[in-house]
Amino acid sequence: MTGVESPPPPTADDVEAVYAATSNWGRWGDDDERGTLNLLTDECRSAAAGLVRTGRAVSLGHDLPTTPSVETPSPAHHHMLASGDARDANGIPGYEASRDYVGTDVHGMGITHIDALCHMFVRGQMYNGRSADEVRSTGAVSNTVMTFADGLSGRGVLLDLPRALGVEDLPGNTAVGVSTLEAAESALGARVREGDLLVIGTGRDGRRASGRVDPFRDGLAGLHAECLPWLRDRGVAVLGSDGISDPTPGLGIPDWPFPIHQVGIVGLGLPLIDNMALGAIGSACAEVGRWEFLLTVAPLRVVGGTGCPVNPVAIL
Amino acid sequence: MTGVESPPPPTADDVEAVYAATSNWGRWGDDDERGTLNLLTDECRSAAAGLVRTGRAVSLGHDLPTTPSVETPSPAHHHMLASGDARDANGIPGYEASRDYVGTDVHGMGITHIDALCHMFVRGQMYNGRSADEVRSTGAVSNTVMTFADGLSGRGVLLDLPRALGVEDLPGNTAVGVSTLEAAESALGARVREGDLLVIGTGRDGRRASGRVDPFRDGLAGLHAECLPWLRDRGVAVLGSDGISDPTPGLGIPDWPFPIHQVGIVGLGLPLIDNMALGAIGSACAEVGRWEFLLTVAPLRVVGGTGCPVNPVAIL
Amino acid sequence: MTGVESPPPPTADDVEAVYAATSNWGRWGDDDERGTLNLLTDECRSAAAGLVRTGRAVSLGHDLPTTPSVETPSPAHHHMLASGDARDANGIPGYEASRDYVGTDVHGMGITHIDALCHMFVRGQMYNGRSADEVRSTGAVSNTVMTFADGLSGRGVLLDLPRALGVEDLPGNTAVGVSTLEAAESALGARVREGDLLVIGTGRDGRRASGRVDPFRDGLAGLHAECLPWLRDRGVAVLGSDGISDPTPGLGIPDWPFPIHQVGIVGLGLPLIDNMALGAIGSACAEVGRWEFLLTVAPLRVVGGTGCPVNPVAIL
Amino acid sequence: MTGVESPPPPTADDVEAVYAATSNWGRWGDDDERGTLNLLTDECRSAAAGLVRTGRAVSLGHDLPTTPSVETPSPAHHHMLASGDARDANGIPGYEASRDYVGTDVHGMGITHIDALCHMFVRGQMYNGRSADEVRSTGAVSNTVMTFADGLSGRGVLLDLPRALGVEDLPGNTAVGVSTLEAAESALGARVREGDLLVIGTGRDGRRASGRVDPFRDGLAGLHAECLPWLRDRGVAVLGSDGISDPTPGLGIPDWPFPIHQVGIVGLGLPLIDNMALGAIGSACAEVGRWEFLLTVAPLRVVGGTGCPVNPVAIL
Repeated sequence: MTGVESPPPPTADDVEAVYAATSNWGRWGDDDERGTLNLLTDECRSAAAGLVRTGRAVSLGHDLPTTPSVETPSPAHHHMLASGDARDANGIPGYEASRDYVGTDVHGMGITHIDALCHMFVRGQMYNGRSADEVRSTGAVSNTVMTFADGLSGRGVLLDLPRALGVEDLPGNTAVGVSTLEAAESALGARVREGDLLVIGTGRDGRRASGRVDPFRDGLAGLHAECLPWLRDRGVAVLGSDGISDPTPGLGIPDWPFPIHQVGIVGLGLPLIDNMALGAIGSACAEVGRWEFLLTVAPLRVVGGTGCPVNPVAIL
Repeated sequence: MTGVESPPPPTADDVEAVYAATSNWGRWGDDDERGTLNLLTDECRSAAAGLVRTGRAVSLGHDLPTTPSVETPSPAHHHMLASGDARDANGIPGYEASRDYVGTDVHGMGITHIDALCHMFVRGQMYNGRSADEVRSTGAVSNTVMTFADGLSGRGVLLDLPRALGVEDLPGNTAVGVSTLEAAESALGARVREGDLLVIGTGRDGRRASGRVDPFRDGLAGLHAECLPWLRDRGVAVLGSDGISDPTPGLGIPDWPFPIHQVGIVGLGLPLIDNMALGAIGSACAEVGRWEFLLTVAPLRVVGGTGCPVNPVAIL
Repeated sequence: MTGVESPPPPTADDVEAVYAATSNWGRWGDDDERGTLNLLTDECRSAAAGLVRTGRAVSLGHDLPTTPSVETPSPAHHHMLASGDARDANGIPGYEASRDYVGTDVHGMGITHIDALCHMFVRGQMYNGRSADEVRSTGAVSNTVMTFADGLSGRGVLLDLPRALGVEDLPGNTAVGVSTLEAAESALGARVREGDLLVIGTGRDGRRASGRVDPFRDGLAGLHAECLPWLRDRGVAVLGSDGISDPTPGLGIPDWPFPIHQVGIVGLGLPLIDNMALGAIGSACAEVGRWEFLLTVAPLRVVGGTGCPVNPVAIL
Repeated sequence: MTGVESPPPPTADDVEAVYAATSNWGRWGDDDERGTLNLLTDECRSAAAGLVRTGRAVSLGHDLPTTPSVETPSPAHHHMLASGDARDANGIPGYEASRDYVGTDVHGMGITHIDALCHMFVRGQMYNGRSADEVRSTGAVSNTVMTFADGLSGRGVLLDLPRALGVEDLPGNTAVGVSTLEAAESALGARVREGDLLVIGTGRDGRRASGRVDPFRDGLAGLHAECLPWLRDRGVAVLGSDGISDPTPGLGIPDWPFPIHQVGIVGLGLPLIDNMALGAIGSACAEVGRWEFLLTVAPLRVVGGTGCPVNPVAIL
């Protein structure tokens, strides 16, 4: 295989039609806030545990960036509160301790994080028809990260597109279509199933060596809007990527700059994990020739939160 | 069984002797920064995955507290950056999103978090003999939370002491001894093994209803220093508790106010998880009559960090 | 004088009537966002500079509280980013520097701060009839702290009530009436004039020694709603206090828990400074027998901000 | 005058000699922490108040930057905690309020801030010979921003170099020498005196229109090290600039990358104000043909702090 053929960019009408056709509103009840997580059942989790062979653990998260860069212009904050020079600052004789503070804009560019279903709106509506008014300045009252309170564990499947396609990485703004996803499945011998946490690798980690990492100038590869019905058909429960799942800087579709975020989160109720680190897991999977594993994502229980920085961990 | 008999409080000399006798410094090489995590092998992880039966997932973390209380005088920060009222504030036509910020003092009282091995010092030394000078105001350079970068997954064992002992909860400042731990093992039919993530339940969640939750006035139950050799003998890899593993306000031992933190983290190299939420997991385990499960703790990859807030998740 | 006679608590209708009668909406144009700052003219400022005699400078701000206490349950954050132990962490040979971070909830209890006119609403309206919708989760778009961008300098007048009345301090929840204010003016030989920054001392700093400092249990003294017309008549431009200008825990008036905040900020357009430190300035004024001075409050220029922590400084 | 002639760059030995020759260590006692603020006496302040003519107030501070840019890669944080959409979130019937959070790296590039004397070290020493060890990870214990607790008020003098020299702005990395400062004094009819807050304008605000604002690529103009003895001779109490007082990216002097920061703060004990906004004050001074005014800088009282963001305000 010599590269990636992108389908032609969709029109706004195309995306609108996909938005209508793939909607999961009402599918799990009018009060549902879990969206496609309804597909990630105990049975899925149990079966996923059965995938474990060697017990090797691999992180799919980046080190939390704390200095500004092209990829992370607004990095996280890591402040030491008491270091070795003040280890006795607690006022308890003999008790010597260090302390620190960590904080971040949850959705910060370049930060590995999960999007809750209240993160995105289409014309003022969230998943399952809820109003944007329910995301208040004091916190969201529905569709929050608390729907992930017990963690997201299940079968992770990595479609490492560069490896599958025999290319180094995907050019910025590549919009991967269904045929490419299915070609990758075939090449890797991995088939996406209902309840999966699907992880799409575009080779971003490898590109870092080249310096072409500006998400808006160099661009990131992502999925074409035509993949949305496919994601629904397959029953994907969670979608992650080393980019942001959408191509950047984007295909220029009026009102639908990022269809995977817009239709995926709002219409399907599909949580997204952005900015995953896929170098290590790609190598690990290639080594054993299997692209499935037990994957756990454990966001903090932030009441009212719109997402969370995470460190997804696979066990192979 | 009618209650918990605490062994008499140890003297400073007793703890000093335990500190000397249980030291793991050098055990895994002079450069080791992983401490007892060396015991949590791929084999442990693989075996732990085999414990999964129903696939039910249960969180062992509290909701992140964001308002001051007796249990959490310095709570975490959750700030909305763009809510529904400003969902179009991104400057990209059609792109409607909310964003928030979350941050916290990692070791904040009442916050479910893990302690890295650079969190504690004894007389200016960290685990494996490193100097407190290596924990700088710009971040620690050794023994950091990055040793947990691939997550901590393995066999979790819950010793739910109130359930095992047939009491409602343990009084504040109770120092649980080895005989009680072993009695709980017998009562629950659970035996702690090498590489385990051991979780000690003292009934703190249940006590909340009573209002007796001030960690320093009402106190928390924890382990007696005599448990340290036992923890080493058993090969416990990670120790967690619904309290802080040490009794509070403490037993008044000169220079050793919190021996589990001091000896455990510095001497044994044993990561601690404080302030776990054990009500749900206790009920779940009681329901199935099994006190072991696959447990995953996935701290953020904070370079230089002394710990991390976490949401530990069990799969039963 | 032997104490402070409080007028009877107003009814909700009383406050409603005061709200209607004292409104400055439209007074300085329909677009006005400066409220009573319109009274603080260049002439006022010039005259205030003429009050300076000795050139002695005195702060009216508290040390920024950074640990939780009864008075400040949610204190400010002060984090060192690079201390002496990492003074060379900048990567520039020879350049040795320390750095820190400071941040706070602007309106934190116990923190000396100024309220912008977008801080308060009455039935969804701000000063000059603007809608609460203009205070968005991404920042306010009107009535912000930016109206203070050039600082607030002018004639400060301190009515130190305990000194004027010959009492130690005012009991919690005291509602000071007009007659008391005027008695204080007479006793101190100070008359409040148009454009003044009026500072009301209730003896809170002195009370701290007694431990009776819980704003909601022990209470704070403040002004009775009957003072609002008086503040308008006198042309007060800015009102400050060692409490929060309103009595706490409050007089129990339905829908009008804090009339000075509600009517003062929304109706009059009167900026308030809460939690001032008045011990030093009280002593300094008593020493020279003059209760007027050049006062400067210089909030940061926070675009969209609802207020700012400040360190007001007097020159006598 | 057609431009600015810079003296040749100093050698490290030159700066070393200046450091020795201009030291104020011990000048005001071995315990002194105020440095050149000792020169800013009550008499200075009283005289400065006498400079006020029209009472016009002008800010010399920038809007607090809250989005990343070339000038401010690590901007401040401004988070709304409760906006109009949650104005009733306080739980007190009738009480409708908004709240926000503001915080910043004190010494952030592009942020108007003052440097306390514990901000800089030379070979591990601070002003007056104190050790860098006194700046701990829990806060500095000497030479802190608390020495500015009563504010810095006095005679401000603006040497607006572009206006004085008849040029548009000074090229990046210009090192202004004494002869240029004195030429500016003559041209503007302003003479710097003991106890002054001296403000050097280099035209940075004007340059912003050109886009040449990257402090390290385009550079900033500042003072040559030969100005240090002049600053000491003249008795300057506080030095501010629209840049950082030092030329950037710097003259390449080994071990002395920024002599004004290094020698000025550590040797002379001279507080610096970086990143002032001088467009408005320049125009105001030019209008009235006077370059002196009452200037007030009122840092927050941050115990242990190394500086503070400020909004300096002039009254003309």
